[in-house]
Amino acid sequence: MTINLKNFLDPGRKLSKMGEFQELKHIEGLEVSSVSADLYKNGRDDLALFYFKNGANYAVAYTANTIISETITWNKQNTKKNIKALMVNTKNANTFTGKQGLSSLDDIGKLLAETLTKREQITRDKKIYKVKTKELLFASTGVIGEKFPVEKIKNSIQNLVDNLRTNQNKLIWMKSASAIMTTDTKPKMAFEEIKLAGKTVRICGIAKGSGMIAPNLATMLSYLFTDADISSNILNKILKKALSDTFNAITVDSDTSTNDMVAIFSTKKIKVAGLNTVSSNELKKFEESLKNVCLELAKQIVVDGEGAQKFITVKVSNAKSLQKAKNIAFSIANSPLVKTAVAGEDPNWGRILMGIGKSGEKIDSKKLTIRLGELLVAEKGKISESYDEDKLKEYMKWNSIQINIDLNQGKDEYLCYTCDFTHDYININADYKRS
Amino acid sequence: MTINLKNFLDPGRKLSKMGEFQELKHIEGLEVSSVSADLYKNGRDDLALFYFKNGANYAVAYTANTIISETITWNKQNTKKNIKALMVNTKNANTFTGKQGLSSLDDIGKLLAETLTKREQITRDKKIYKVKTKELLFASTGVIGEKFPVEKIKNSIQNLVDNLRTNQNKLIWMKSASAIMTTDTKPKMAFEEIKLAGKTVRICGIAKGSGMIAPNLATMLSYLFTDADISSNILNKILKKALSDTFNAITVDSDTSTNDMVAIFSTKKIKVAGLNTVSSNELKKFEESLKNVCLELAKQIVVDGEGAQKFITVKVSNAKSLQKAKNIAFSIANSPLVKTAVAGEDPNWGRILMGIGKSGEKIDSKKLTIRLGELLVAEKGKISESYDEDKLKEYMKWNSIQINIDLNQGKDEYLCYTCDFTHDYININADYKRS
Repeated sequence: MTINLKNFLDPGRKLSKMGEFQELKHIEGLEVSSVSADLYKNGRDDLALFYFKNGANYAVAYTANTIISETITWNKQNTKKNIKALMVNTKNANTFTGKQGLSSLDDIGKLLAETLTKREQITRDKKIYKVKTKELLFASTGVIGEKFPVEKIKNSIQNLVDNLRTNQNKLIWMKSASAIMTTDTKPKMAFEEIKLAGKTVRICGIAKGSGMIAPNLATMLSYLFTDADISSNILNKILKKALSDTFNAITVDSDTSTNDMVAIFSTKKIKVAGLNTVSSNELKKFEESLKNVCLELAKQIVVDGEGAQKFITVKVSNAKSLQKAKNIAFSIANSPLVKTAVAGEDPNWGRILMGIGKSGEKIDSKKLTIRLGELLVAEKGKISESYDEDKLKEYMKWNSIQINIDLNQGKDEYLCYTCDFTHDYININADYKRS
Repeated sequence: MTINLKNFLDPGRKLSKMGEFQELKHIEGLEVSSVSADLYKNGRDDLALFYFKNGANYAVAYTANTIISETITWNKQNTKKNIKALMVNTKNANTFTGKQGLSSLDDIGKLLAETLTKREQITRDKKIYKVKTKELLFASTGVIGEKFPVEKIKNSIQNLVDNLRTNQNKLIWMKSASAIMTTDTKPKMAFEEIKLAGKTVRICGIAKGSGMIAPNLATMLSYLFTDADISSNILNKILKKALSDTFNAITVDSDTSTNDMVAIFSTKKIKVAGLNTVSSNELKKFEESLKNVCLELAKQIVVDGEGAQKFITVKVSNAKSLQKAKNIAFSIANSPLVKTAVAGEDPNWGRILMGIGKSGEKIDSKKLTIRLGELLVAEKGKISESYDEDKLKEYMKWNSIQINIDLNQGKDEYLCYTCDFTHDYININADYKRS
């Protein structure tokens, strides 16, 4: 997607860094590595490792699809509360791979744990140090149903561990974020640095995903790292809260993947008083920053939606309940007819109206107003008297389109984000498996 | 859509007449007419009239979209149980047209009733004959939110009534079916003739619709006419039953329109003993034929789906309940990723798997089998041992693709029908309003 930044009208928080990545910084206690295991057969990095020498607290959310990857099954069966490493592979989703898929992770886990343990015994001191298989977390993304490439991955583990970098800078983050991509055209990264009780803490986030994106964590992986010392329990609470208005508020094609996950890791390096107390001011500030990072990443995913040319924000306001606002917003955002109209720069608000009604939610046509950006198109049960087709056509040429629905029925509001539906979506998806 | 008939593998009932229309015949007691009211500004017929001089019993089902056309509102407020005429206009949906849209139908109704009354007084005898506004039914399809072209339609009514034909043959039916089209590339027609208790009764059906098609009567109009004398009450019962496995079993793009309707009319000309008794053998036979006509029309709509190149049948069998089978079938049939894979002739069964899980229904991966046509692709939680990519690629080249899901969890089964998602869908929908 080529976004003309000058032309980029962001409806909510400014997508200031879109196209010019934020300056991600080092997270103390984290080491990263990425290499090519030749899964793509073109030399690109397809295996990434995130290593916490002294362990990390973490929280994770998985896909809502009822069929899940063997990788997720493995994590659920094996991984403990405190972990040492996360390994991500692309190209193969390890889904519907049966016993082979699941037992592959046993083999890989054993080798990875041994290799990491050995590294510490060489590079560090005589102190007994051991990484256990149960301290590992895995993620896979790519094609479903193909044999999991266990040998290629095992053959790359030594190289992956040898390449671990203790210090991260923008380029190293970009390399890691690129290693987890599939059909993405660019890596997704976001960063926040905040002062809490006199101390500076950081949140680094990376993500991947462009097709099969829908609410509830479609084919999307996102990893958030912080140096702030926060318990797994609290991480879990704040991650769930952050998701609903960020990663769960985006949709590319209404499809939901079998694989995906959002996880947050704390390296526990920076102790901040109050940060482990629910509803403390410090935690609230941290949550706000976490939400910013998640929203930034979520928007980057939509902007890089398969074939996307335009970013679409659907805002439904003054609904009787949050659920009703959500249903209507997603009904519009998931409509192929709305998305193709936006692709065609056609202010076809009749399809927006159709999308509202398709939600099944009862609305009062006479109270409803529909705006494209600031331009009023319909009110009082009919086309607006100030309707100006030329102005609307001009607006539809923008890279970022906001569809504003005011129901005038209550007080609840929901925003969701999507992209248009273009020829490139068809190109990418009609021949994905062979590419 | 260019269907190669030799290549057309129909999974259920044979689509024998696809591309070579059935021979629709005359329905005693019905007169039809269609003219151009210049709504399309290119001379094509855009106004159709179906006239029952001696009245008709009828039953109708409308869209499930919570925003409905003013035309439907008018029908619901005005039309009586026994009617004399149905008038259909295309190009303008008369939706979100406010008071202008609703009062236009008052004006048009008054004029149409007067014109029909006058015709009878000239062409027939001195007997007092009157068509009332409350004996009229309307339908509209086309663009939402544009001013309803009341004057153009009023100016065409005399011509429309003058052109009424007492006898219908295949060509006259084709003219009527063409007059109600919007983005359709061909008219939809179906016919059955059955012997009941020694008498022959007929069912003629026409339909339109290609985009905005989803379960619950998306932008779709269908009118069924029979000479069999059946009460409105019974018509209502059998229409509702026929819909669930026919018109409500199809989806083109998951979008649902604000306008559409399926109606059945009885001219009451042929009296058959038993036909007005629920669960009589005669009624069962009639219902079976009605369902055949509806299914034939429904499939024709899918085949003419916007941009469709391939017809897709999704069959979910051995589910725990009919609702679960339906949810899974539509979850697959509505998935843009599945539909683009079929467009690309890619046997990407991973996306089918994703579609199953996306439904939210719990399934047992170990019991599940997935077949493309007769070809087994996945079973026992992994790719089938007989999986043959070459054979599958050959199969995907067919014009009609069947996706067979066996859940092995229960006894319920559901079939739904859709088409692939192609570049032409984008072409048609990115610039519909201007065409």
